[in-house]
Amino acid sequence: MSEENGSGYKGKTLQAITKAKIEIGDRIRVAQGEKVYEGILIPRSEYADEEHIVIKLKNGYNVGVALAPETRIEKIGEGAKPAFAALTLPAENEKLPKVVIISTGGTIASRVDYRTGAVRPALTASDLYSVVPELSSTARIDAQILYSLFSENVTPKHWTEIAEKVAQEINKGAEGVVLTHGTDTMGYTAAALSFALQNLPVPVILVGSQRSADRPSSDAPTNLIGAVTAAAYAPFAEVVLAFHESPSDTAIVLHRGTKVRKCHTSRRDTFRSVNASPLGKVENQKIVMLTEGFRKRSKSSKLVLKPEFDEKVGLMKFHPGMDPKVLQWYLDNDYKGLILEGTGLGHVSKYLHDGLRTAAKKNVVVGMTSQCIWGRVNMNVYYSGRDLLSLGVIPLEDMFAETALVKLMWIFGQTRDVEEAKILLRKNLMGEFCSRTLLDRVGDS
Amino acid sequence: MSEENGSGYKGKTLQAITKAKIEIGDRIRVAQGEKVYEGILIPRSEYADEEHIVIKLKNGYNVGVALAPETRIEKIGEGAKPAFAALTLPAENEKLPKVVIISTGGTIASRVDYRTGAVRPALTASDLYSVVPELSSTARIDAQILYSLFSENVTPKHWTEIAEKVAQEINKGAEGVVLTHGTDTMGYTAAALSFALQNLPVPVILVGSQRSADRPSSDAPTNLIGAVTAAAYAPFAEVVLAFHESPSDTAIVLHRGTKVRKCHTSRRDTFRSVNASPLGKVENQKIVMLTEGFRKRSKSSKLVLKPEFDEKVGLMKFHPGMDPKVLQWYLDNDYKGLILEGTGLGHVSKYLHDGLRTAAKKNVVVGMTSQCIWGRVNMNVYYSGRDLLSLGVIPLEDMFAETALVKLMWIFGQTRDVEEAKILLRKNLMGEFCSRTLLDRVGDS
Repeated sequence: MSEENGSGYKGKTLQAITKAKIEIGDRIRVAQGEKVYEGILIPRSEYADEEHIVIKLKNGYNVGVALAPETRIEKIGEGAKPAFAALTLPAENEKLPKVVIISTGGTIASRVDYRTGAVRPALTASDLYSVVPELSSTARIDAQILYSLFSENVTPKHWTEIAEKVAQEINKGAEGVVLTHGTDTMGYTAAALSFALQNLPVPVILVGSQRSADRPSSDAPTNLIGAVTAAAYAPFAEVVLAFHESPSDTAIVLHRGTKVRKCHTSRRDTFRSVNASPLGKVENQKIVMLTEGFRKRSKSSKLVLKPEFDEKVGLMKFHPGMDPKVLQWYLDNDYKGLILEGTGLGHVSKYLHDGLRTAAKKNVVVGMTSQCIWGRVNMNVYYSGRDLLSLGVIPLEDMFAETALVKLMWIFGQTRDVEEAKILLRKNLMGEFCSRTLLDRVGDS
Repeated sequence: MSEENGSGYKGKTLQAITKAKIEIGDRIRVAQGEKVYEGILIPRSEYADEEHIVIKLKNGYNVGVALAPETRIEKIGEGAKPAFAALTLPAENEKLPKVVIISTGGTIASRVDYRTGAVRPALTASDLYSVVPELSSTARIDAQILYSLFSENVTPKHWTEIAEKVAQEINKGAEGVVLTHGTDTMGYTAAALSFALQNLPVPVILVGSQRSADRPSSDAPTNLIGAVTAAAYAPFAEVVLAFHESPSDTAIVLHRGTKVRKCHTSRRDTFRSVNASPLGKVENQKIVMLTEGFRKRSKSSKLVLKPEFDEKVGLMKFHPGMDPKVLQWYLDNDYKGLILEGTGLGHVSKYLHDGLRTAAKKNVVVGMTSQCIWGRVNMNVYYSGRDLLSLGVIPLEDMFAETALVKLMWIFGQTRDVEEAKILLRKNLMGEFCSRTLLDRVGDS
């Protein structure tokens, strides 16, 4: 899904398609000597060259054709109109719970774009019912579009606005909220909302998809049904991420927002609960809880909104040969906090000790996580860990780096008091620490 | 294992233990009111305070006791001498292959330190036979100490020296080399040696342990036997990392050096082959190959040593709220290359586009990997990926960030020609790319 509206064509390729009266989404034929390509003209990146036009072939692949003097381009069909099947909205069943779906973008909202490149999140209520008719028997849906963002462009400022919007809908009576989101940074947003939305009365479910809804293999409909079912009926009131449990369509698993991480570039079950059991799952339209330790849904709970984040928190992934001046840069630029992604049980090289001593003097809060991802930091085992403890580095238990980063950004959105920040960082606020590693398996949830 | 020799005690704690004639490793009793602790005095970090003395209790845990005026300290036994069981070296069986074990440090070499804090890698041949007597019937062992390093302090300069040392031993006739190494950065070193030692005639096996050899639950002996067996008899001639396949003692799995990553802070089977099948395993003293695609052991191969690395290569793990000035810092400091650990299929936010445009202008080579770790980068699926391709970012397929970083450091150790560097970065040199994802499971090997 693009955030731009232009076709991206310019110079001679723009001239050629304009001359042939071709628009984005039209079916075209491009002939070059003996080679002939037929397909749909799709838009180009704003940084693309002027030489190539890009066609989506029938088999779904894109091909770029370099324009040569002998190239012939013709239009052979109109672009498919970006409309969904005509549909009479189902009569609302007042007995069903009211679920608000808020779209922020991502593949799950990219139904039309896949064919034409146009920006059109499929998230009016009627569009949704057209894609997933089952929803009308699950909940009364109110669908709203907040953003149309690639999730890699989501920033802490968006987290604040999303939290405010969710709070608004809950205060207006939503019995559950579903947030559609690009999968790339959905784990970060899930952690951010976990800290920003406290004392929740109802569930907040983030959902996305790895393939767009108009592809036969799409995971969008099953993920969405699972998310809406959880929002409407789950017994918990937490921020949770709903996604396929396995590559098949059997169950949608519900991961706690502070413990979930994207662990595969393309699989349907890319999200994993790391160092924790998932909260539950949706199977055969029923919710099965997998742990007893969760915050209960309760109408009498009064939501506490704490939506501020401070971006002056950095993430440093340690590696052999890392220049200590990288650390110095953060100190010179008035960062308030730093999350280290160290090795093993929570180590970095001795070459960083001087920088960490300066950090402590400048009251920069430094937390340690492990690039192993799975397992728990323990800085008491080796001298090198104890050295780091002496230098004021705070061990962050079984919390992985991404959640630690979000938490520290959130902490400095709440307080400027360094000692209070350290106390909050060590405290288990929203299930970000597990008292023991419940599921001690790497990768598998 | 410490790199320092001092006890770490100073001020009043040093006075107290000196007065009581207690040395590191002695058994002591500390009484404070009703509380009495008995155990072994262990050394402290050089940055530790002057208030606490630290005792290793019988149960293996360390306890720190704050010195108060009423604290009484007494010595109740001499420190265990850092000597192994007396042993007559086994007569060498000339029919057995000659394996050279080179120690660089790490937990596997920390037998004595665990009790006394002294630096004494357990790696003379007689020490090894004392810990693992089985070795004498497997190979003729020549054990040498190169370093005593915590592996988080290993730098690219050490990679160069290790590669040179391994090459020297192979050229002198070793039929297999075992390298003991701390586990924290052993994956990085395995990748580094994979690129530095080309056209190998014999196997080079890295091995470590998660627990020191004198603990009953240690994985050191089984890992070491597996590594020596592979070095002596494996049909391949590659750089491989040997470690437990599962938490039990059944098999030692052999991971290709460019595809192996530490994925758990404390488990015995912490190392995983990522986006690849392991090369093989050692089970019941036999080597079982798990893939046919490997470089064969061959006496006639002439080792090609390319040990140079250039540290002017950075690693940037992208996250929401990342300041584009971090990227600018690398450009201002004359970095030659940069590995991005992007989101999903290989994305970073549009806020980094300006910096990446500058990078391209300055001839900085930028490669893209995914923080998902598992799966393959594909920057043709979304506009944002295509934008990055237009900006010259090189997609690094299924190679994870750590190996990509090591590879680019190695490339700039071989050439200063940017175009040649880009060609090398895209080329599958040492199995760092898999043509398809053989094992598409997250975490589990």
